[in-house]
Amino acid sequence: MEGPLNFYLALVHHPVYNKEGRVVVSSITNLDIHDLSRLVKTYDGRALYMVTPLETQRAMIERICSHWREGFGAVYNPNRGEALELVRVIPSLDSLREEVIKETGREPVMVATSARQWQGNFVGYRELGEKILGGDEPVVILLGTGWGLAEEVIRGCHYLLKPIKGMGRYNHLSVRCAAAIVLDRLFFREE
Amino acid sequence: MEGPLNFYLALVHHPVYNKEGRVVVSSITNLDIHDLSRLVKTYDGRALYMVTPLETQRAMIERICSHWREGFGAVYNPNRGEALELVRVIPSLDSLREEVIKETGREPVMVATSARQWQGNFVGYRELGEKILGGDEPVVILLGTGWGLAEEVIRGCHYLLKPIKGMGRYNHLSVRCAAAIVLDRLFFREE
Repeated sequence: MEGPLNFYLALVHHPVYNKEGRVVVSSITNLDIHDLSRLVKTYDGRALYMVTPLETQRAMIERICSHWREGFGAVYNPNRGEALELVRVIPSLDSLREEVIKETGREPVMVATSARQWQGNFVGYRELGEKILGGDEPVVILLGTGWGLAEEVIRGCHYLLKPIKGMGRYNHLSVRCAAAIVLDRLFFREE
Repeated sequence: MEGPLNFYLALVHHPVYNKEGRVVVSSITNLDIHDLSRLVKTYDGRALYMVTPLETQRAMIERICSHWREGFGAVYNPNRGEALELVRVIPSLDSLREEVIKETGREPVMVATSARQWQGNFVGYRELGEKILGGDEPVVILLGTGWGLAEEVIRGCHYLLKPIKGMGRYNHLSVRCAAAIVLDRLFFREE
């Protein structure tokens, strides 16, 4: 196959819940940028969107990325820079949608993830993977930071992926681990 | 099922490779402790072993864990403390093996992971998952930090899991993402 697969990962910092269930803007975590860009690169996605309305936070992400893409970091560890090429910072999900339409000429299929039990239009992991491999429509997979995507985001998406359930009753994965599991479930088939 | 599943995750800080291919002791990353303990809790393992020969590093891990288990953090975010209960610090893989024998009365099955193409006694992800669910022998899954587990560790293991291959040629996942993918592949079966 030529070029990347037709999907994007988006890490959403607003609107998300905090511990008390209020809708907030969460802060950027440096390691999210590295882990998730490497993840998207590994699964050959088009880009990792870092979504935050805070201009200072967007500037910080740009600074981190340019350190590893062009600064000392690019010499010290070129693998990081290669992954960080995929990072895009954007103020809102509306701007993200517009940018994807401009890039691909198609309305993106928006897919929410959540650890909570929402009602919604569920899509299976394999089913979504097949849709992406088909390549017709761009797919955007949204991950919430903090205590998860706000209900308004989930309601506004075309599809919802089932919560990741492990083997016990505990379900508090980090967004880095959850993202890795989601992308692997889309595409991995054991021989 | 009563109690946890009969497996352990071990994050190895020595012997591992550095960027130049030399065997070194790598440093602890704070977020590894949180992400991996939450991961092991989610997949209901017995414990997360943090393996490092450096006493100062082991003391640091203990201090971080006790902050979230007993200090202010236990009140601020009890979910973290619950996961960190599973963290054990240990100086070497030999001590780890002895401790598992003492705990379970059985010789553990040691399973290596690597992003490199080693020759070895491969076990499938599902196959290993079934073995763990069978529950007879304790299974220890080893993850390397830095640039991966040293050859001597891989040679000393009973089994090796196949490298995680994404959809492109890039394979530089963070250990947090790789660990999540490994545990999910063992146990997840889409309905």
